[in-house]
Amino acid sequence: KTHIDCIASQRVIRLPGLMDVHVHLREPGATHKEDFASGTAAALAGGVTLILAMPNTSPAITDGATFALAQKLARLGARCDYGIFVGGSSENATELPSIGEAAAALKMYLNETFTTLRMDHMTDWMKHFENWPKHMPLCVHAESRTTAAVLLLAELYQRSVHICHVARKEEILVIRAAKEKGIDVTCEVAPHHLFLTYNDLDVKGRGKVCPSLCSPEDQQALWDNMDIIDCFATDHAPHTVEEKNSATPPPGFPGLETLVPLLLTAVNDGKLTIEDVVERLYTNPKKIFNLPDQPDTYVEVDMDSNWTIPETMKFTKSKWTPFAGMKMSASVRRVVLRGEVAYIDGQVLAQPGYGVDIRTLPQPQRPVI
Amino acid sequence: KTHIDCIASQRVIRLPGLMDVHVHLREPGATHKEDFASGTAAALAGGVTLILAMPNTSPAITDGATFALAQKLARLGARCDYGIFVGGSSENATELPSIGEAAAALKMYLNETFTTLRMDHMTDWMKHFENWPKHMPLCVHAESRTTAAVLLLAELYQRSVHICHVARKEEILVIRAAKEKGIDVTCEVAPHHLFLTYNDLDVKGRGKVCPSLCSPEDQQALWDNMDIIDCFATDHAPHTVEEKNSATPPPGFPGLETLVPLLLTAVNDGKLTIEDVVERLYTNPKKIFNLPDQPDTYVEVDMDSNWTIPETMKFTKSKWTPFAGMKMSASVRRVVLRGEVAYIDGQVLAQPGYGVDIRTLPQPQRPVI
Ligand SMILES: [Zn+2]
Ligand SMILES: [Zn+2]
Ligand SMILES: [Zn+2]
Ligand SMILES: [Zn+2]
Ligand SMILES: [Zn+2]
Ligand SMILES: [Zn+2]
Ligand SMILES: [Zn+2]
Ligand SMILES: [Zn+2]
Repeated sequence: KTHIDCIASQRVIRLPGLMDVHVHLREPGATHKEDFASGTAAALAGGVTLILAMPNTSPAITDGATFALAQKLARLGARCDYGIFVGGSSENATELPSIGEAAAALKMYLNETFTTLRMDHMTDWMKHFENWPKHMPLCVHAESRTTAAVLLLAELYQRSVHICHVARKEEILVIRAAKEKGIDVTCEVAPHHLFLTYNDLDVKGRGKVCPSLCSPEDQQALWDNMDIIDCFATDHAPHTVEEKNSATPPPGFPGLETLVPLLLTAVNDGKLTIEDVVERLYTNPKKIFNLPDQPDTYVEVDMDSNWTIPETMKFTKSKWTPFAGMKMSASVRRVVLRGEVAYIDGQVLAQPGYGVDIRTLPQPQRPVI
Repeated sequence: KTHIDCIASQRVIRLPGLMDVHVHLREPGATHKEDFASGTAAALAGGVTLILAMPNTSPAITDGATFALAQKLARLGARCDYGIFVGGSSENATELPSIGEAAAALKMYLNETFTTLRMDHMTDWMKHFENWPKHMPLCVHAESRTTAAVLLLAELYQRSVHICHVARKEEILVIRAAKEKGIDVTCEVAPHHLFLTYNDLDVKGRGKVCPSLCSPEDQQALWDNMDIIDCFATDHAPHTVEEKNSATPPPGFPGLETLVPLLLTAVNDGKLTIEDVVERLYTNPKKIFNLPDQPDTYVEVDMDSNWTIPETMKFTKSKWTPFAGMKMSASVRRVVLRGEVAYIDGQVLAQPGYGVDIRTLPQPQRPVI
């Protein structure tokens, strides 16, 4: 390609407001890592106008009081729209449906985890499959064979399940087989599993993430089965640089500000189409999570903007990125959220409190069960 | 109960030749623990006239040459009838069906295991589900969530699966749910999981077994779901007393000689019926594993014989038993195998080489798929 100049060659495209169904905003409990204000600033800078916030805060959102606290903190802090997950525990299967009416969805952690979110026994999972309303999304952290186990439960309980952050060949292939069999499963993939492998970072150091970075064969399987991937979602999991550089780094990567540049650069590279990206960051998340329209909301992206991901992105409190040094050919220019310019050319204009809890809005018609 | 004398009160019952579908005979490779001659003597003394031998020998039975070696050793050594399993590996999914035509069944080890039998990835399991003939039994060591994962694969590949040594509440309950849904699953339970819990033995010492001894709640769930249990099988896994007393004891219990006394004592105690036992040690194993009739074969048991399980049973080389000290009210008196008295009153009369490989006999009509 030759250009007269960069300005003249800009190809600016307007996309709908993008929706990231998997982010950790660390509030309450670890606001030195992130909070609603900083995390939603990062979201807007990344072209994301709606985030769903995970329940593994401190305390974890497994009861009504903590859910109410998280709702209040989000209402005060969020600059973009949001929903809040409730977390399944071995204790709360029967009461969660009433608490969770106003939640984005139920999240269950089915691999090693800590706090009250730990559920070792399938008998505990089964209670949630039995009790959580069928019209509400049920999301699982379920790696490797656990993916297959929850697909069985979806079949046995005749309900949908959404598999978070699919990372491995065996996971995507068993999901493919289950979809072909008619099991009601959807799934998401994180950019770091699409664009990085265990060869790219020290997986016991900064590169520690859960699910782990996988092999090039696993990575290729994700690309080869793109038709099975319903959503892209960051699993934005911020920690401080000090924490990530420590002897026992916590798992997780920041990802909001790099989400759209990475995916649109893949579009420029011919690995995806714009439609692939919009389906997986707007159409499908909206459908799977029953998310409302955001009127007068859109994102302007520059498809001809060459830059290199720096050591740290601007808005997250997590001052590092696993994608540092990668060459990008696209960027987010402007984000308009409900009629207001929320982000433009490196500046977040939306203030804390501008964001709306999407479950307080009139809910889209749910599919009849 | 009052008795004039013990002889007069004997209630001797004749049962069919019993079939234990899960035994480890350690030959080739570890004949100091057991061999075909000693293990099948223990079988006969326990009222078992047909055993199916597991493939985790040394070398493991994952290829044609080792299978041929095991066939020869069994032919020379076995005193009762037998079949031999082949083991699935990450390498042999395509060639195993031809090797395995003469095998009892396919066994896959899907939890932590060693040697060539290790298969970490579901992609490897899926190849076996795809390739192993649907009319041949497919058995799995698949604990906890892995039980659910293989139930999904049985559903996806529309074939049967047999779950070995079910031990936990979550396992039996997910199998119940799968059966109710019409998934083609059968399962077995070992006497040590029915009669012992982790309160009875040191589970890091002599009491180490795989699956582990579980909680009283798990144990109760097995009894509560007896209608879901298709077979009893010993998982007879002999090691020497020195090995079991060492700092790193290998997992496994001998079980053949105590199988029928334990179960018939439970009958006397009103916890099972004779029919329950015969179904699970004869009718169902025969059907599930497509085992032939053994003509002129039967077992005489004394339902009124009071004794205490000693520190060691007589015929296995594994000179200890986890059931030592338990009070029994039934015993095996006489075993007739194909017209010959194979065992009577503490003496094994059948010689090594008397046993027949049941897959060399005319095979029973298989169900049409
Ligand atoms: Zn340019
Ligand atoms: Zn539990
Ligand atoms: Zn997760
Ligand atoms: Zn996450
Ligand atoms: Zn008596
Ligand atoms: Zn593999
Ligand atoms: Zn096993
Ligand atoms: Zn075994």
